[in-house]
Amino acid sequence: MEAMNHNSTLYSDVAMNLESTHSNVIPITLFIAVLCLCLVVGHLLEAYRWLNESIAAILIGFVVGTIILCTSKWKSSRLLRFNEELFFIYLLPPIIFNAGFQVKKKQFFHNFFPIMLFGVAGVLISTSIVAAGSWWLFPKLGFGGLSISDYLSIGTIFSSTDTVCTLQVLSQDETPLLYSLVFGEGVVNDATSVVLFNAVQKINADTLNGQTALRIFLDFLYLFSTSTVLGIAAGLVTAFILRGLSFGRHSSVREIALMVLVAYLSYMLAELFELSGILTVFFAGVLMSHYSWHNVTESSRITTSYAFATLSYIAETFIFLYVGMDALDYEKWKMSTLSFWTKMGLYSTVMFFIAVGRAAFVFPLSIISNYLHRSGGESSKISGHHQMVIWWAGLMRGAVSVALAFKQFTHSGVTLDPNNATMITTTIVIVLFSTVVFGFLTKPLVDHLLPATNSNTNNRNPRDPGSPKEDMTLPLLSLEESASENLSRAKENVSMLMDRPVYTIHSYWRRFDQTYMRPIFGGPCSNEPSC
Amino acid sequence: MEAMNHNSTLYSDVAMNLESTHSNVIPITLFIAVLCLCLVVGHLLEAYRWLNESIAAILIGFVVGTIILCTSKWKSSRLLRFNEELFFIYLLPPIIFNAGFQVKKKQFFHNFFPIMLFGVAGVLISTSIVAAGSWWLFPKLGFGGLSISDYLSIGTIFSSTDTVCTLQVLSQDETPLLYSLVFGEGVVNDATSVVLFNAVQKINADTLNGQTALRIFLDFLYLFSTSTVLGIAAGLVTAFILRGLSFGRHSSVREIALMVLVAYLSYMLAELFELSGILTVFFAGVLMSHYSWHNVTESSRITTSYAFATLSYIAETFIFLYVGMDALDYEKWKMSTLSFWTKMGLYSTVMFFIAVGRAAFVFPLSIISNYLHRSGGESSKISGHHQMVIWWAGLMRGAVSVALAFKQFTHSGVTLDPNNATMITTTIVIVLFSTVVFGFLTKPLVDHLLPATNSNTNNRNPRDPGSPKEDMTLPLLSLEESASENLSRAKENVSMLMDRPVYTIHSYWRRFDQTYMRPIFGGPCSNEPSC
Repeated sequence: MEAMNHNSTLYSDVAMNLESTHSNVIPITLFIAVLCLCLVVGHLLEAYRWLNESIAAILIGFVVGTIILCTSKWKSSRLLRFNEELFFIYLLPPIIFNAGFQVKKKQFFHNFFPIMLFGVAGVLISTSIVAAGSWWLFPKLGFGGLSISDYLSIGTIFSSTDTVCTLQVLSQDETPLLYSLVFGEGVVNDATSVVLFNAVQKINADTLNGQTALRIFLDFLYLFSTSTVLGIAAGLVTAFILRGLSFGRHSSVREIALMVLVAYLSYMLAELFELSGILTVFFAGVLMSHYSWHNVTESSRITTSYAFATLSYIAETFIFLYVGMDALDYEKWKMSTLSFWTKMGLYSTVMFFIAVGRAAFVFPLSIISNYLHRSGGESSKISGHHQMVIWWAGLMRGAVSVALAFKQFTHSGVTLDPNNATMITTTIVIVLFSTVVFGFLTKPLVDHLLPATNSNTNNRNPRDPGSPKEDMTLPLLSLEESASENLSRAKENVSMLMDRPVYTIHSYWRRFDQTYMRPIFGGPCSNEPSC
Repeated sequence: MEAMNHNSTLYSDVAMNLESTHSNVIPITLFIAVLCLCLVVGHLLEAYRWLNESIAAILIGFVVGTIILCTSKWKSSRLLRFNEELFFIYLLPPIIFNAGFQVKKKQFFHNFFPIMLFGVAGVLISTSIVAAGSWWLFPKLGFGGLSISDYLSIGTIFSSTDTVCTLQVLSQDETPLLYSLVFGEGVVNDATSVVLFNAVQKINADTLNGQTALRIFLDFLYLFSTSTVLGIAAGLVTAFILRGLSFGRHSSVREIALMVLVAYLSYMLAELFELSGILTVFFAGVLMSHYSWHNVTESSRITTSYAFATLSYIAETFIFLYVGMDALDYEKWKMSTLSFWTKMGLYSTVMFFIAVGRAAFVFPLSIISNYLHRSGGESSKISGHHQMVIWWAGLMRGAVSVALAFKQFTHSGVTLDPNNATMITTTIVIVLFSTVVFGFLTKPLVDHLLPATNSNTNNRNPRDPGSPKEDMTLPLLSLEESASENLSRAKENVSMLMDRPVYTIHSYWRRFDQTYMRPIFGGPCSNEPSC
């Protein structure tokens, strides 16, 4: 409906843009130049370990925004107007696909159950709490006028986390379980919150009651399962073609092109069937790196790993730069008619419910996960300190929150409604505050909670995709595990499934993977060294 | 002027497109699926060596076009409408940048002079002849109504070659000079014809006389030199940053991102200053692979080589597919009111002048090149048979011709003028005919002219970028050459420059490169193994 009202304005804007194509060249050129600057600054910062790269991009965006604001005589602080298509078709899919592609498969499948608990159930719990909390407190603070649908969207917007900052200070070698949980939750969480956001948009609820919640939940389940199946199918088809035709004999270029095109195709197909493209590319990424990646030449492996990581890196830096510039958008700040204290109240409310919503699932779900892993030994238990780190890691808000907020509350980055403008500025404040303030506090906190960690991680960039290579040379099972598996095979039965449910499911999956999937779709065999 | 008249139609089209965003998803999805099909078919064809991949893409486009034509009840044969921006901003730059990036630097610099003769002077000669020929013969065939500017554009459109087909049957090892000339001319030629096309567009001549020609030539020189300087500057800046900051210590991703972003930035800067972005990215590509490539990690080297080659491959396949589909565009064929024989006359005229225009520079320029290389020994002489192969290699017309023709004669792929429609169909016929018919004849002809060749080249794909690696391990000078250079240093003087001008200039460049450029911008040193 809103879109229809804006159509006439939009068309004249498009017409203007077409006429001034040449004048668009200047902002795009400047934006790319600033991106290059971010790259160089990010490198220097990392070399000297002063601060996080996302913070750097936001700050550079802030500085550039100030310069533009001054040169344009307080008219605008932005080089580019927000474009939904740009965010959801060009920037987000590479980020999510890369997350799926780079995920450590061994750890991911090993900890599949707790990761899914945190990433899916966690988002549902967090969304309910943030939505209910803001619905309850916002009117009391003197900020009314939002619809039920807006509150539900706020819940999903503030449930998507940005865990990069924490991953940078965790050590994959010293705390593998913790690292895997934080990383895994981070990527599943992004996809889940986008799916849930879409489910909320589709329902367009008038009242917040049990029936609406159930409809949203069912729609979410439908979107989640169908998108996942489509992504898995895309990954398997690619693996099958690459294995069957052995492209690499003639050209690595075709292998790479096929992987890129099928990933994009799966995204488009999902959009065509009105599913969640984001979730589809995520699972396409996981499957491609689990199977297809083993069917291609060494050059293709290196190229895909690094090319996808680079795309994702550029897209993320782009979004953080944009947020930094948009923080200075004078119009939006002016539009909101609320008092300073009301605004502060809003920010604190949202921040408070983010923290509470996260606590409400991290600690209980950790206990459930520990119970299910109760026979798995100390290494598969999530300790109290680890639970604290997981809780903290997910307090930061990032690119996805901003993208979703712009989708819900603006039309091509512009809003004329004071309430919507307030929600945009609130999102930006939350992202800035959580990224900058919490970002600075992460290292001291992790040092305090995990004293042994953080010694030799300084030379390792978590964005750098070195690990698929390690995965490839490592067999999926270590010899030790294989031995214990062989033993367990003899006595496995229903009672074992009850006793060690997660371990058993995982070992079933592993056997299924090795017996049926890998021979068809590719991948290293750990049992027979000949194949 | 024309653009202004079309504006109102264009705007309503854009408006329609925005409303039917979702219905656009279907054609894009189908197009990507067809691209994937092309990839697989291309691989199968190569495995069995039936036919050239460009031909395959055109034929698949043809078949898909027929299916669409039938299902849409003879309304349209195309999935996507031609979009100038898509071609000139997204498809062409990656193709040209990759050509510059993959060019064999050693051979390219060694044969710099003849390559530039063929690629730059050749285009100027060919354009004059095709433009003058069509200006003279078209009205006699009963096809008038084109402006002087149209004839000049026709000259440039039909002067851009597509040498992929010939390169597939040449052997880089057996005839290195020939391969290097055909490859080098192919890439320089693309960039030159786009620059010349832009120069012609800018002048917008009313009459064809000496003064116009001079103005176009001077404008061409200005565009050519400034764009080259900008591209070189972009390449050197990247090399300097990568060398100075040694990004690779922390992250290969940043190195790759920087190279991609600076390449794109150089393109945008060229467009901003109204230069030729195509030529700029070409030289940025050459410089980046000559210097920057040596300053980055091994992973970045592999990734950039293959990622750029993949982008270029996808863009080329895309264009050939589009040409195949557009060949069935019923509207354009219906619009032209000419008789069958007039059309045949047009096609033959253009084909004849393409052949004559090419002969008019290949043979004389070869003689000049041979004269300048007269003391260089047999290996640097272009023999008669080689001249024939060079002439033949450049008879095929490809993606660039189509893109330029659409730019000159349509507005977003649509034309209402019968003359313009005729020129579009003529271009498509020439591209189809030369690619398919000449493409099939190339292998027998090359086998006949170069009997020794073509024995062990079957397993080597010319698109596959394996060679930068070879370049890296090889020092720029072989030991033999170094010795002769040391000898020559003693007696080098003006008389030698007169005697062996090309060789001397090349050896000066090489010494300059090693003494001043490589220490600053990176690259292997052949003299001191320590650095």
